[in-house]
Formats: sequence, structure tokens, C-alpha cells
Amino acid sequence: MARFRYAAGLWIVGGAKDRFVEYRPPVDLQTMLDMMRQVEHIEAVEIPYVGPFDIDATRRELERAGLAACSLITGTINGPRWKFGSLSCLDESLRRAAVDEVKRTCDAAVAMGCSRVTVWMGQDGFDYPFQLDYGGAWDRLVRSLGEVCAYAPDVLVGLEYKPKEPRTHSLLSNVDKTILACEEVGASNLGIVLDFGHSLNAGENPAEAATTAASRGRLFFVHMNDNYREWDDDLVPGTVHVWETLEFLFQLKALNYDGWISVDQAPRREDPAKAAVQAIRNLEALARLAESIDVEQLRAMQGSCRIDDIMAYLSRLLLGET
Amino acid sequence: MARFRYAAGLWIVGGAKDRFVEYRPPVDLQTMLDMMRQVEHIEAVEIPYVGPFDIDATRRELERAGLAACSLITGTINGPRWKFGSLSCLDESLRRAAVDEVKRTCDAAVAMGCSRVTVWMGQDGFDYPFQLDYGGAWDRLVRSLGEVCAYAPDVLVGLEYKPKEPRTHSLLSNVDKTILACEEVGASNLGIVLDFGHSLNAGENPAEAATTAASRGRLFFVHMNDNYREWDDDLVPGTVHVWETLEFLFQLKALNYDGWISVDQAPRREDPAKAAVQAIRNLEALARLAESIDVEQLRAMQGSCRIDDIMAYLSRLLLGET
Amino acid sequence: MARFRYAAGLWIVGGAKDRFVEYRPPVDLQTMLDMMRQVEHIEAVEIPYVGPFDIDATRRELERAGLAACSLITGTINGPRWKFGSLSCLDESLRRAAVDEVKRTCDAAVAMGCSRVTVWMGQDGFDYPFQLDYGGAWDRLVRSLGEVCAYAPDVLVGLEYKPKEPRTHSLLSNVDKTILACEEVGASNLGIVLDFGHSLNAGENPAEAATTAASRGRLFFVHMNDNYREWDDDLVPGTVHVWETLEFLFQLKALNYDGWISVDQAPRREDPAKAAVQAIRNLEALARLAESIDVEQLRAMQGSCRIDDIMAYLSRLLLGET
Amino acid sequence: MARFRYAAGLWIVGGAKDRFVEYRPPVDLQTMLDMMRQVEHIEAVEIPYVGPFDIDATRRELERAGLAACSLITGTINGPRWKFGSLSCLDESLRRAAVDEVKRTCDAAVAMGCSRVTVWMGQDGFDYPFQLDYGGAWDRLVRSLGEVCAYAPDVLVGLEYKPKEPRTHSLLSNVDKTILACEEVGASNLGIVLDFGHSLNAGENPAEAATTAASRGRLFFVHMNDNYREWDDDLVPGTVHVWETLEFLFQLKALNYDGWISVDQAPRREDPAKAAVQAIRNLEALARLAESIDVEQLRAMQGSCRIDDIMAYLSRLLLGET
Repeated sequence: MARFRYAAGLWIVGGAKDRFVEYRPPVDLQTMLDMMRQVEHIEAVEIPYVGPFDIDATRRELERAGLAACSLITGTINGPRWKFGSLSCLDESLRRAAVDEVKRTCDAAVAMGCSRVTVWMGQDGFDYPFQLDYGGAWDRLVRSLGEVCAYAPDVLVGLEYKPKEPRTHSLLSNVDKTILACEEVGASNLGIVLDFGHSLNAGENPAEAATTAASRGRLFFVHMNDNYREWDDDLVPGTVHVWETLEFLFQLKALNYDGWISVDQAPRREDPAKAAVQAIRNLEALARLAESIDVEQLRAMQGSCRIDDIMAYLSRLLLGET
Repeated sequence: MARFRYAAGLWIVGGAKDRFVEYRPPVDLQTMLDMMRQVEHIEAVEIPYVGPFDIDATRRELERAGLAACSLITGTINGPRWKFGSLSCLDESLRRAAVDEVKRTCDAAVAMGCSRVTVWMGQDGFDYPFQLDYGGAWDRLVRSLGEVCAYAPDVLVGLEYKPKEPRTHSLLSNVDKTILACEEVGASNLGIVLDFGHSLNAGENPAEAATTAASRGRLFFVHMNDNYREWDDDLVPGTVHVWETLEFLFQLKALNYDGWISVDQAPRREDPAKAAVQAIRNLEALARLAESIDVEQLRAMQGSCRIDDIMAYLSRLLLGET
Repeated sequence: MARFRYAAGLWIVGGAKDRFVEYRPPVDLQTMLDMMRQVEHIEAVEIPYVGPFDIDATRRELERAGLAACSLITGTINGPRWKFGSLSCLDESLRRAAVDEVKRTCDAAVAMGCSRVTVWMGQDGFDYPFQLDYGGAWDRLVRSLGEVCAYAPDVLVGLEYKPKEPRTHSLLSNVDKTILACEEVGASNLGIVLDFGHSLNAGENPAEAATTAASRGRLFFVHMNDNYREWDDDLVPGTVHVWETLEFLFQLKALNYDGWISVDQAPRREDPAKAAVQAIRNLEALARLAESIDVEQLRAMQGSCRIDDIMAYLSRLLLGET
Repeated sequence: MARFRYAAGLWIVGGAKDRFVEYRPPVDLQTMLDMMRQVEHIEAVEIPYVGPFDIDATRRELERAGLAACSLITGTINGPRWKFGSLSCLDESLRRAAVDEVKRTCDAAVAMGCSRVTVWMGQDGFDYPFQLDYGGAWDRLVRSLGEVCAYAPDVLVGLEYKPKEPRTHSLLSNVDKTILACEEVGASNLGIVLDFGHSLNAGENPAEAATTAASRGRLFFVHMNDNYREWDDDLVPGTVHVWETLEFLFQLKALNYDGWISVDQAPRREDPAKAAVQAIRNLEALARLAESIDVEQLRAMQGSCRIDDIMAYLSRLLLGET
């Protein structure tokens, strides 16, 4: 199988805060890129499209750092303006503003040469029962996405689903509902950004979620991190869910996924550069284990429900002969 | 709006057990119907199709009790035979046996005059990472469902999704994935049995899930109960999630749902007849509250994001003026 | 029974942010007090002790607003300095600094005339397995608390437990562990600030948690809010868990709790003044319902395990005759 | 460090069922022991004390199989009689019957030569808000435990806590509350049976829970299994939570725990004998890894908050150099 190509969200070496504390102040582009270039195996970065965004300057800095841009992420979560939603917002002028902003991000992605845009609609959803007219919100969301995808047919628009935070309930909450949105829009350039941790939060097995998306040609991009299932803790990959991470990487290879594996974590008390290095090391080690799995043999054991044999096989793989 | 028509799963007044204790032994059909007929407002029952199933005798007993059959439920969960799954099972002979059993249930449903069948695939899923070839299981599931729906075009086949139990992970785990199955099969007689508690287990807001299903013409049947979100406790409706139950009933009316509202609970330490009465009382009380909501006013408040006003309106509704 | 006396955390009408967005900028003391004084039934406020803290000016402003101070909250969560913990911190100089800061807060509480201090150790805990020497952290915590309680014997020092956030695992995670800390310290002025939402996060029934604390003389203070169990959403009280909130208020009265009922919520998209009004309205309405419960009758039904009768009684109470 | 001594609950090779399906019928004592004796490293079994219990016959069978009895488990969960609780039950005659049954179990444990009894009070708790008078239930529980511990001073009585199932809320729900019970009873022969999976269900880090119990001299016995946090799935140890299992075994050694490590799992679709072998293999492999951890080095890194170094150290340990 082909090796994975690793990337990272630029923000993982940027500032860090939660609702109580600012752990590190924001960091300028050049400093972030200098930190990132030193992380072995990282070839590209995801970049937030938040204004003012100087395309030329950003390209120059990337070139200097020897890093590619693999994706832009829309800024329709940033700022209180979007607190009631973006592409699904009830307020028509805000919805239009969100559509325009995503279009601008698509234009910038083309100019940056990556032609990938991630849309995370963190504010589209609700907090309390009775707060949202679900049907209406869905229809507006589909309409907005249709307009964006038609505008930028050469850009892969990836929807990053997540069940909650910052809303208590997000509209695009799991892989299946996001597929429903993709299919209802009907554009081939609309797909999914599968964040491993969001998938756990959604109660999914991420390897199964990847299969759901990939089998419909919608698996566009992958974010790696880890958490304790109930919340998007954005921990370093492999530090909690060893088996699920291993299975996910195995399944990506089995699905012939040839896109980026991008680290999206939020080190607060850790050194962000060291955490980035650790993330890649864990992913590389697990990817090697995944590669050593005999696919034919596994499928044969699955096919005859020999679950005891699967368990024994995997334990030997990770823990060695006993 | 039209009144709801109430039904109940026959089993809610039958035997009761968990993996540790048998609380009540199984109860014969006549006794269950005698208990059920005394619950005001219940007009029909859901009946498990588990052999030996005597259609004529069952019809006579129902007539005697003055109750209708509103749905049959397939028995492809009952017995260790199905422990690795039914309609998605890797073992082709078992998969065929499951398809045949569902077809027989459809035939019986026609003979019983209800033309509704509920399929709950509790054993189709997995327990451990790496145990299932997700893509293959999905394909078999879709193929099986297609065959069943083609066989019984006049029967409404409803899929009851649930995220877990008895497997740690079910294949049809949430409303969205079940819609994906319906749309991939492409049969108009395939739809969803929305169990309120399963929807909570799936991390859903049930009113939103109902909207997702109904807007695609797939909301066939509704099960009512309650739980503490993490597990299918099958408690009496309205005893934990007052707001979500109220919103769900409101939304059913707003969606012009005209099917059955069926109680599916599992009283273990309660008197099952009293628990059935209480279930209907809670549902009726909440349904009346739901009817008293001014839909126009609510939609107007939702439409302008007046969430403070919605909160005030609802508190007055349930808790009165303060 | 006596009426409840209501208070609120000053911050509930202050600024609002999460890790992604600042919804409202910080608000000055006078403005917050002006908003709070207009909320009917709120008689007192909890005030964060974060420097520079001008005791005299704060007292003047409170007097002007006609509000009392009911508690000060320590600032040992504010700022990255405490990111590895406060009273349990491994770094002895930081632990000493935390002890000193809590002592200063106690001094200020005496000067403010409220003699109550809340200690929420949000940073004392761990994020990853193997990160903490649990035994050592506990010992330091107990030693620090002992020193603080001995220093300020006239101040009621209340520990606000919470299972997670901002750490993925907090040291004082539930009511029982916090009681263990109180009893190991052995000071009578050490007790518990029971936050209703934190209690839900900890998997507790808050009414039971209140009983655990009160029966040992440790229930010092109460925070009210609501959430969806998995995370400290800080929603308006009564908007999700109607039954548990009702039972909690009932049990507080049954336990003869005569302390403050303080609102601690985090309106982000709501108008904070309206949300405060709504919180009190919900609490008042539920408190009145709680008062109307016949304690003798309930205890008699509990005593003879008549759980069906309890269910019927409660449904009539909240939903009326049906 | 000393090697662990492994045991297993006899039931893990017995019958298997859930509330829907009986996967395997009950198995007689001799057959279970024959299966168990073939599992390498298992030296002893835990045996349910459910009548009729023939002490002499059981001893003979154990001797024949070359296995020791390490603990008896009380039968006060078995049968509908205990549905409203055992040692905390409101019905005084049932509470007395439960106390007597636990005493009989203690007598039998002495006769069996193991002098250890596990008490799991699965039915002591509540299902709905308002159902239990918490204070009264706690007082009865403490009184019952006091009587039992005084009766059998030479028996180690271990309380197995669990947050839920079969009740939606158990009285002894976490390690801390169980410690509170032990300390309130005040008997030195009362302690804790720490079930790894129950600890995860309680939101605990099991290594921390073990520390809490052991530091008070209350860690009597350990059950190993695994699950997905929300429910007591009783999966094979090490198949989900690799890091937490490793840390737990490490911490047991660091705490000088010299008791049994007993497998308590519930294979339903697996071959129970193979699952037992796998459990021990996983535990042995992880125990060896745990032994290879340099305690001094780890404590030094913990002591100076070098969390990046801890993460790197652990990744190398499990996943090798990268």
C-alpha cells in the first residue's frame, strides 16, 4: 500500500484557550510555519481563511517553509456574528453573507493551489428543545451548499460534521446525516471531512464511518486526534483509542484512501511542537502496524465470524506473543 | 389537529427479565390482551411474530378483546441462531433464513389486516473493533431489504434503529443511516420505526429525527418510552425527558403524522398494567400541552431567533405563570 | 417550609466566550450589578476574587445596587499560571501561591461580610493516563485544604466538584470524593458547593448528592443550571431536567437546607438579563411545586415501595389530572 | 515486583444471556471447572453462593480440577425477590433475609477456605426520580453492613460498586461512595471489589480509583474486563482501553497490591474458553509492559509536569521506536 501523506492544521501550533483560560497567545503565520516545518513527515498545512487573508504573502511563507497548503477552512465560525448559524441561518442576510464567505474561501483555495475547502458549521444547530425549525434549517442548508458547489465546481468542499460544541446540538452531527446532505445537494464536489474525534463523539466507530463516506465517493479529508468519547478533547492521536485508531488507519488503506491525514489537536498544557511530533510518531507507528495486517486473512476470519481468531490475531499484533 | 391514536407492544404486559433476573414469567396471549384492553385509549397492539404463530387464533383473541393489530414485529432477534446478525449476516444460509422469516412476517401481517411489519435488527452489528467488514455487511443488508420490499409491496416495512444492545454497535444505529438504507434500497414501502428512547441513545433530538424521516416520507411508526440517554432503559414515557417528549409530540402533529403512537416500555419492578395506564396518561397530558402550542407564534419566534421568548413561552406552558 | 433565598454568580451577566468565539466582551462591575438588581428575587451575588479586587469599592457598589455578597470565588483557575493545578500542584511554589491566594480570598470574604468562599479546582487533575501520581496529588490537596481551613476558621470554605473541564479528569470529581476530602482534612468549616449541572455530569442524581453532603453537615452552597449530562453546558435551570430539578428542590427543603440557591449559567446566544429572569422564574415555579408535595405521603409510598403510586402522584403534580 | 496471580469468575464459562436471547444454557459445575482448568495461569475461581450450594461437593470438584476458591459472591441479586434491594431494602423482613444470606455466604467462605466474600448490590438503588428516600436507604445499608462485618470478622467482605444495571441508578455507584460506606461502618474487614469496567462506567480512571481504595487499606479484590464506558459490556480485558488497562496494572504493582486479578467477562458470541485464554494473554502481555516501566523515571517526570516526556515514553513502550 501507499504511504500516508501527513498534514496538520496550522492552529495546532498556534494560540490555545478554553472558555476559562488563555494558555498561549495567538502566534503569527511565520512562527507557526517555522514550528511546523520541523515536524518530520508533515508536508502540508490546513489554513483558516480568516480575514485579512493575504494570499500572496501566505504562499510566499509556505514556500519559504517548504510546506504545501492542503486545504483552507472557512471562517464562518469565527466571531459572534455567526452565533445563530451560517449556511443554515434563519436570517437571510446572514445566510447570504455566509454563502459569500464560503465562495471567497473557494476562490482563495484555487488561488492557493489546493482546491480544497473545509466547512465546519459549528454554529448551525440549537441549544434548547423547540429552538429550531428543523425542516427549515435543513432546507436552507441544502440550498446554500448547492449554491457554493455550483459556484466552485473545481473545489472539493468538505463538510466537517460534529455532534456538538459550540452548540449543544449541531445540525450536521454524524457521517450519515452529512451524506444525506451531500446526496440531497447532488454535487460531486461535496463531501466529508472526517474528524476522528468528532466521529467518536457521534457514537460512531470511525472505521465504519470512513467506509460509509468512501463507498459513496465522499471521503475527502481526514482529521486525526483523540478524546474520551463525550467531548471533543482534541488530544494527541493514539493516546486513548489505540484499537479504533489502528482500525481506522487500516480501513483507510483498505478503502484506498489517498488523501491527507491531517493532525487536528489542541495541546493546552503540552508543548505544541512536541505534541505535533508525538502525533505523527503515533500515527506512523500505528500505520505500520496497520500495514502489517494481512487483509485477506482478516477478511476471511470476518467472513466466517471467527471472532475469537480475530481477537487473538490483533492481540499478537499489538502486544506480541505471550 | 387530529387526536393521536395509541397502541402498545403486547410484550409490555408480558414477562420481564434482564441478564440477571427474571422478574415476571412469560404471559399467554389471552392474559396479555385482557390486561391491555383495560388500558383506556389503547386501540391496537404490536405483536411479535414468533413461532408457532397461529394467525386465526390471534385474530379471534384480538376481536374478543376489542383490540386491533397495528403491526407485527419480526422474530429475527429471538434465539441464539441470529447472534451474528440476520438480514446482514455473513453466513448466506442464515441471511436467506432471515429474509424468508421477514417475508413470512409480511404475509402474516397481510393476513392479520395490519400490513405493517417492524424489523429490528438487534443482532446485526459488531462488538469489537475489526470484527466486521462494514462495507460487505451494508451491501448484504441493502440486498436483503430490497428482496423483502419487492416481495411484499403492500406491506409497510419499518426499520427500528438503535445504536447498541444487544451488540455494542448496531449497523442501523441512527435515523440518518436508516434513511440512507431506505434510499439505497429505493422502495417506497421501506421506512422507519422511530423509537423515542433509541433516538435519545443515538444522541438525537427525537423531534429532529422525526423531521428527518417524515420529510422523506419514511416515518412509518413511533415507539414511546424514556431513558437516561446512555442505555435503552425503556422507562415510562415522560418520566425523564419532559421537554423532549413534549417537543416530539408537537413535532409529530406539525409533520401531520397520522400513524400510531405505540408504547414500548419494560416495567420490571412496576405493575405492568399500571405502568401502561401511566404511559398513556403522560402521553395524553403532554399531547394536550403540545396541542395548545400556537404553531404560528412558535415558528415566528424561531424564525427571528427570539430564543429568550421561546424559553419564556414554554416555561409558562408547562409551569404556569410565575 | 421557608422560602428559598436566591442569588446568582455575577458572571452570568458578564462577558461570554467559548474556545472559539467571544460572544460578549467583559462587563464592568457596576453594569453587571445594574443588570442583576433588576432580576426579581435575586438578593445576593457571588463574586470572583480576581485581582485587582477593591473591597471597599465593591462593597459600595453592592450597597448602591441593594445586593448582598453571598460568596467569593477564588481566582486559582484564572490564567495559564495554574494550568497544572492549584492546591494539589506538584510545583511546591505554585502550590504555596495557591494556598496564599485562597487565604487572601478568605480574608476578603470576611471583609465583605459574607464569610463564604468557593474553591473550584478546575485545573487540578489530569488529561492523559499516566500523567498524575494520584496519591501524591491527593495528599497535597488535603494538606493545602487543611492549612486554609485552619487559617480562616470563621469562613465556610466550599469545594465545588466537577468531573471534567478544563481538564479531561478533575481530582475532585463527584460529591463522594469531595466528602472524602472534607473528612480527611477534618475541618468543620470545609464543605461542598453542589453545582446541579456538575452533579449531572458526574452521573449523580443531584437530590441524592445533596443528601450525601447534607447528612454530613457539608452542604454549604448550591449552584443551579442545566445541561445534557455529558458536558457542563450551563443552560438555564429547568430547561432540560424538569424532574431532577424538582426533586432536587424538594430534597433541599426536606434536608432543611437554608443556604443560598445561586444561579450559575452561561448564556451565550441569549440575552443574559432575560436568561437570569427566566432562571428565577423556573426555579420559583418548581419550588412551589416542590412545596406542594406531601412529604409524609411521599415517604409512606417510598417506604412501601409503591413506585406505581409515586409515578402517578408526580405526573398529576406536574401535568395535572388526565 | 511480584507476579500477579490470576483468577476468574466461574460464570465466565457458564451460560450466557441478555434480556433478549439465551446464547448458551447454564453449565454444571464440573464442566465449568474442566474448562477453567485448561486456561493457563488461572489458579482460582470466584464462585456464586446460590443455593443449593454443596460446600463439600464444591471443594471436591475444585480439588479435582486443581483450582482454588478465591472468593464467594452473594446471591442477593438472583431472583425477583430482591428486586427492590437487599441490604438497603425498605422492607425490614427482606433486609433481614439479605443480611442472613450474606452471613451464610461468609460462613461458606470460611468453610471453603477462602475467607473472601463479594457483595454486589445490584438491586439496591432506584430507577426514577423520587423513588427512593436516599438518607434512609443509606442508613439501612450501613447498619446491615455493620452487622455482617461484626458477624464474620475473619472474612474480607468486598463491596463491588457499579453505577447502574440492573437499576438505572445504584446506591454504591463509585469507589468514593463505597469508601464512605466502609468508613461509616468502621470495620476493617470491609473493603472494595474494584471491577475495571464498572470503574469506567462510573467515569473514573481505574488506576486512580485503585489508589483511592488502596491508600485506605480497602482494595480487596480486582475484576478485569473492558467496555465502551457507557455500559457494563463485560468485554475481554485490553480490547478497548489499552492505556487505562496498562496504567491500572502498573498502579496495582506500584500500590503493592498482592491480591487476585480475576477475569469477569461475559462472552456471548465468543467461545467462552477461548475468550478466557485471550483475557489472560492480554493481561499477561500488559502486565509485562507495566513491569518494564521505570517507576522512578515516571514519578520524576510526573513530579516535574513533563507531560510531553511521559507521552513520548509511553508511546515508545507500547508502539516501539518510530
